[in-house]
Amino acid sequence: MALALLRHMRCLCTLPRTVAALQSSIDKRSYAERGSLERVVSAFRAVVGDDGVSLGAAVREQHGKDESVHSCQPPDVVVWPRSVEEVSALAKICHHHRLPIIPFGTGTGLEGGVGAMKGGVCFSLRKMDSVLDLHQEDFDVTVEPGVTRKALNAYLRDTGLWFPVGWCSPTAAWLPPARRAPTGRRHQVNLEVVLADGTIIHTQRSRKTAAGYNLTNLFVGSEGTLGVLTKATLRLYGVPEALVSAVCSFPSVQAAVDSTVHILQAGIPIARIEFLDDVMIDACNRYSALSYPVSPTLFLEFHGTERGLEEQVSITEEITQGNCGSDFSWARDTETRARLWKARHDAWYAALALRPGCRAYATDVCVPISHLPQIIVETKKDLTENHLTGPIAGHVGDGNFHCLMVLDPHDPDEVKRVHHFTERLARRALALDGTCTGEHGVGLGKRALLREELGPLAMEVMQGLKAALDPKNLMNPGKVL
Amino acid sequence: MALALLRHMRCLCTLPRTVAALQSSIDKRSYAERGSLERVVSAFRAVVGDDGVSLGAAVREQHGKDESVHSCQPPDVVVWPRSVEEVSALAKICHHHRLPIIPFGTGTGLEGGVGAMKGGVCFSLRKMDSVLDLHQEDFDVTVEPGVTRKALNAYLRDTGLWFPVGWCSPTAAWLPPARRAPTGRRHQVNLEVVLADGTIIHTQRSRKTAAGYNLTNLFVGSEGTLGVLTKATLRLYGVPEALVSAVCSFPSVQAAVDSTVHILQAGIPIARIEFLDDVMIDACNRYSALSYPVSPTLFLEFHGTERGLEEQVSITEEITQGNCGSDFSWARDTETRARLWKARHDAWYAALALRPGCRAYATDVCVPISHLPQIIVETKKDLTENHLTGPIAGHVGDGNFHCLMVLDPHDPDEVKRVHHFTERLARRALALDGTCTGEHGVGLGKRALLREELGPLAMEVMQGLKAALDPKNLMNPGKVL
Repeated sequence: MALALLRHMRCLCTLPRTVAALQSSIDKRSYAERGSLERVVSAFRAVVGDDGVSLGAAVREQHGKDESVHSCQPPDVVVWPRSVEEVSALAKICHHHRLPIIPFGTGTGLEGGVGAMKGGVCFSLRKMDSVLDLHQEDFDVTVEPGVTRKALNAYLRDTGLWFPVGWCSPTAAWLPPARRAPTGRRHQVNLEVVLADGTIIHTQRSRKTAAGYNLTNLFVGSEGTLGVLTKATLRLYGVPEALVSAVCSFPSVQAAVDSTVHILQAGIPIARIEFLDDVMIDACNRYSALSYPVSPTLFLEFHGTERGLEEQVSITEEITQGNCGSDFSWARDTETRARLWKARHDAWYAALALRPGCRAYATDVCVPISHLPQIIVETKKDLTENHLTGPIAGHVGDGNFHCLMVLDPHDPDEVKRVHHFTERLARRALALDGTCTGEHGVGLGKRALLREELGPLAMEVMQGLKAALDPKNLMNPGKVL
Repeated sequence: MALALLRHMRCLCTLPRTVAALQSSIDKRSYAERGSLERVVSAFRAVVGDDGVSLGAAVREQHGKDESVHSCQPPDVVVWPRSVEEVSALAKICHHHRLPIIPFGTGTGLEGGVGAMKGGVCFSLRKMDSVLDLHQEDFDVTVEPGVTRKALNAYLRDTGLWFPVGWCSPTAAWLPPARRAPTGRRHQVNLEVVLADGTIIHTQRSRKTAAGYNLTNLFVGSEGTLGVLTKATLRLYGVPEALVSAVCSFPSVQAAVDSTVHILQAGIPIARIEFLDDVMIDACNRYSALSYPVSPTLFLEFHGTERGLEEQVSITEEITQGNCGSDFSWARDTETRARLWKARHDAWYAALALRPGCRAYATDVCVPISHLPQIIVETKKDLTENHLTGPIAGHVGDGNFHCLMVLDPHDPDEVKRVHHFTERLARRALALDGTCTGEHGVGLGKRALLREELGPLAMEVMQGLKAALDPKNLMNPGKVL
């Protein structure tokens, strides 16, 4: 990631790439059956219409990068299918001409997952944004990939149901991962997928099933390398009667983590526990004009019935007090809840505001929760020693945390230090039985770390699965594996 | 299933199969490199010792069948490895000689998943029954496949943690499925797997991860056709402060299902909702000397804090009353709870007791909950019209239910009627967007239905994955696909 930035300090997107470049790109890849450029583009147009295909440099550049620091790798052409049939027809053309297919959602990925490493065709799924087949009694809804969580919950407003996954677009898990990517693996119950050769499959029929291999979870999180996901049936939940938000400060990371473990051990059905470190709290205080104590802080959210919540909050407060927590405050009304959580919600922008004009990159390691205090303390020391800005926000119940690295992309020395820091951080997580990515995915930037994490044998298995589903290596080539 | 029973009315196990049969079986399979029998068996003995290998007819017969009505298909030899290294060494020998490998757990499967269709070597995992690496703060534990849920929870007794999955051995999901099989897909966070060629892999490192493809869920529920699962890291939960059990009667299946939907919509975090139909309740009343009204009945379980539960139970009672429920009773103390749920716990035996000397076979379809009343009403009509005994028990929150078919295996006409009934039932579920198996798996008996359910294209994908992981088709051949 930062290494790529080091290599290509300036965005390669500025290179003009035109129809000729597409032809050259097609030539370079020595297709088995070489289709003329005209035939390929006019075949695309026959499927999606003239306004569903773009060869324009600006459009291609916009589709060749995400929010990461990876350099832009624009596709040769961008297409906007409107239905699964169109995705399938386009994929068949690509398959015939051996053109890479890069699915594109919102462009909010963090690991360079959308770069067209070998050129090819970007499938923008933006026009597929319908909510289909809401089954209220069955607690499920089918959505196209362009539907965001916000849009879905707006659609569900009067049904008494919601899709509660935090910081998540329901599409994020099936596209190259998004910045606010979820661990949405459990929330999809069926997927419609277009494979590299244009075949349309459905991964399962029933919410609960033991019928054959679990294809749903194989495709979720595969970052566009196994197929184009064109529909997902998502599990919905009853909107809870009441919500409570709470905030509590701690003298140390250890005390905050201990509280979290005790809350979970007490069986409190807590909806969210988020952690911000002292540096992040300080940044949030400045950015959002707040006055939280500058110390490790937990942000909590509870869902339930009015009376049930009272008890949950009271037990939780007791647990935090037993772990030296202070300034415990909580609220039930929407406005006060929003104010309490404002720091957490604005964390990304508060971090960016620490150094105006700089860019941010979020690391994404995850360790067993018992190792969280150690890795956070060591990481904070590392940041200080290397004069780096990296406030920390974490999903503490999962052991997953992000250093929001704020860096000047025009300072090669800082870029290099960030690169080395992120590698040390990932290896520190691996040494503590953790993973190099809890949410954001592997993309381009973490392929070497993935191999270190899983070992060559599990990698061979993944490569075998990829080859079985995409023997010509057309689906988002150069990513993950 | 019943078709197989029809074909082989008497268990084939009575055929004496000996060392000569093993040799013949080896010969028949035309090995690429033909090892002499002596070499194979002595190689096994070198790995697991003399008492870790059996060629005895009785032992092989015992390992060639499960609790289903499928005829016994004994393996040529049974081995009892004690460690992953031994499993790997044995698998390498099998791979070299192209001998099928059939993993064997408890023999409680219901779809003929352990039959040695092409002969081969049964890997009994009974001796691998250790609980390893309990991490209390991380809420996980690693177990070998021989550990049952009961044994695990006994081990956890003083930790404040438990593995709550109902009617489930933690191993069930990775072995050919067990009678009380769970939908345990979400409870495993890492697996150790031995592949067909003896390679040992770990599917993931961290509870939460976005690192590469989700191998864990690919292997879970694969019924021994992709590898031998030798360890699983399971997610644990805090033991709730209190449990409440409740029972309620309804005038119709529709009323019971409506109550369930309303309870879920109200966001009540209910732990279990189980359904028994009038025939099943009648059988339970007789078997367990109970006096429940003979009508559709829900059995409910709530986990939480003392005060929170009071509220949950009170809302639930109100909902059931709004749906014509009656005789709502609930209890908090262990003894009364056990009495309330006795009918549900004894259902299998109560069904068998309806016709002493008969055998039972549980169907296993699952539909969207909104279709549950329709399919249950139609199914009960079908049972009556065809003079079949099949009391119904269902996991109503999932839309999953079982007809506990009690049949005389020596009455060919009844066997035929049961066979046709189960096929109609499965197709009825498919027509209502359901699945032919919610829990028990495909095994031998539901391969044709699986194809009807998923269609030829998804089946091809599954076959491709199988071929990628097990190119010689040695892992439990003839099952699932």
